[in-house]
Amino acid sequence: MAAPIALIQGASRGLGFEFCRHILKNKTLATVVATCRNPDGAADLRTLAGQHPGRVTVFRLDVNQENDIRGAAEMVKEKFGQLDLIVNCSAMLHPSGKGETSLREVSAQGIISTLTTNTVGPLVMAKYFSPLLLKGSGGFGQQPAEKAKQHSGIIVNITAKVGSIGDNGLGGWYSYRISKAALNMATRNLSIELGRSRPKVVCVSLHPGTVNTDLSRPYHRNVPKDKLFSTEHSVNCLMNIIDTLNMEKTGKAYSWDGTELPW
Amino acid sequence: MAAPIALIQGASRGLGFEFCRHILKNKTLATVVATCRNPDGAADLRTLAGQHPGRVTVFRLDVNQENDIRGAAEMVKEKFGQLDLIVNCSAMLHPSGKGETSLREVSAQGIISTLTTNTVGPLVMAKYFSPLLLKGSGGFGQQPAEKAKQHSGIIVNITAKVGSIGDNGLGGWYSYRISKAALNMATRNLSIELGRSRPKVVCVSLHPGTVNTDLSRPYHRNVPKDKLFSTEHSVNCLMNIIDTLNMEKTGKAYSWDGTELPW
Ligand SMILES: NC(=O)c1ccc[n+]([C@@H]2O[C@H](COP(=O)([O-])OP(=O)(O)OC[C@H]3O[C@@H](n4cnc5c(N)ncnc54)[C@H](OP(=O)(O)O)[C@@H]3O)[C@@H](O)[C@H]2O)c1
Ligand SMILES: NC(=O)c1ccc[n+]([C@@H]2O[C@H](COP(=O)([O-])OP(=O)(O)OC[C@H]3O[C@@H](n4cnc5c(N)ncnc54)[C@H](OP(=O)(O)O)[C@@H]3O)[C@@H](O)[C@H]2O)c1
Repeated sequence: MAAPIALIQGASRGLGFEFCRHILKNKTLATVVATCRNPDGAADLRTLAGQHPGRVTVFRLDVNQENDIRGAAEMVKEKFGQLDLIVNCSAMLHPSGKGETSLREVSAQGIISTLTTNTVGPLVMAKYFSPLLLKGSGGFGQQPAEKAKQHSGIIVNITAKVGSIGDNGLGGWYSYRISKAALNMATRNLSIELGRSRPKVVCVSLHPGTVNTDLSRPYHRNVPKDKLFSTEHSVNCLMNIIDTLNMEKTGKAYSWDGTELPW
Repeated sequence: MAAPIALIQGASRGLGFEFCRHILKNKTLATVVATCRNPDGAADLRTLAGQHPGRVTVFRLDVNQENDIRGAAEMVKEKFGQLDLIVNCSAMLHPSGKGETSLREVSAQGIISTLTTNTVGPLVMAKYFSPLLLKGSGGFGQQPAEKAKQHSGIIVNITAKVGSIGDNGLGGWYSYRISKAALNMATRNLSIELGRSRPKVVCVSLHPGTVNTDLSRPYHRNVPKDKLFSTEHSVNCLMNIIDTLNMEKTGKAYSWDGTELPW
């Protein structure tokens, strides 16, 4: 079997960077394609790549630019010809860095930007990269014995619990909540189209918990210490889920502890 | 009690136009504010207004333009000072007029346009018009005896069953499905913020059935005749639901027959 290849989209910082670190450390045969919008500024990622010679390829990819995504897919195709896993990590709370606390703070421009990065980006990623996942070797997840039920690749869209419509009891954070609910529909729709094809691709949304990153920084002081996960802990939990994914689990949203999230 | 005032957004054609007709015919005391992006081209609406002198005010409002929405809200405030009901009708399947049948047909620009009209528009409507609904007289829906549970106004976002993530078994129509799932989160979030205020505003998503309009025209031949509703029948059903709305029913999505839709 070919060495597994994972593409981490939004790999410069936070959870995306930790996914790269985790896979390089724990999947010793795996190759990582790390994409970010500014490779020159991604010092940690460059250091990490240096520590694992020949195992990391960094491509520039701004998820807001369809041309970047198309171009990166062509380069990955040329260099690797296939993919086993994509994790879409990039997102923002809002261009201001903070979720709207009330309707007064909502603006068309703010929500359109948030939707473009958090929802449209991962969907357009699937458009250009799913052909490579369909050629994958199924190197991530759990393969059942029956060939017809096996998958060639996996798409993970990092969602958020606050993107659950049914679970929403507090309100606020209009742009972010709406973008993640929309992303969950994208996940569901992708799971259907890519679950019908042969070979098949698994697609799920995963919630990482509340994690100590730049994204959540404005809210850290409101989070009890034991509820604020390190990126290591969160990615550890998420990779445990990814390791058990198969076609029976496709099309759903799961929390870091493996429980299913309501839509 | 003041005469009820309803604002129908997207009133030039289809369901929006029929909401105007229905309210003028069946709520004989009500006043209608009809908004559309091109009043000069909306011949049916002008004829209708002529048939009900003094009861219809038409304002130009392109729901993609935050400035249009702000401006219309100022004019409604000046002329009426309050509102009892807003129905957000405007939407598209996709700029091409047809939903995407597969991922290959997805484009960033197509989905961003669809989200802007179908999701961002209704949310920005709520931003500028909710202050007028908070001043409403509660002229639509069902008021309970207890004052604290009464509502001053209602927001109806016209959604679609294909926007239900849980109900999605077929896939396709990426932009439209995602935009309506996102709209449902907007509804939910609005219901929370406007359900906390005093007075309170009800906010729901309503699915009109499959209706004989321009939007669904490309698909009419696939719909059994008795499943393709006239706009009259659909709006009749939806107004029956609106007539029974109260704060206990806020924050949910209902189908034309009154059943609750899953998220
Ligand atoms: N942290 C939490 O508590 C939490 C909770 C629930 C869900 N999540 C989700 O977890 C995921 C990762 O978030 P995080 O906490 O790791 O956030 P983070 O530390 O703020 O990292 C965000 C990442 O997104 C990238 N990014 C933003 N816009 C981009 C664009 N247009 N193109 C490419 N990359 C872009 C950033 O790249 P640059 O370095 O170039 O800016 C950065 O790598 C997100 O989907 C977030 O919604 C996080
Ligand atoms: N028909 C169905 O089977 C069906 C099923 C489920 C849900 N729905 C929903 O029902 C609602 C009404 O749809 P319909 O069937 O009545 O569609 P329709 O006949 O195609 O009418 C669409 C309306 O939206 C308006 N509109 C589009 N873009 C706009 C913009 N930027 N600003 C302002 N107005 C804009 C159009 O105005 P112009 O005249 O200026 O173009 C038109 O009045 C939509 O939300 C749709 O998603 C319909």
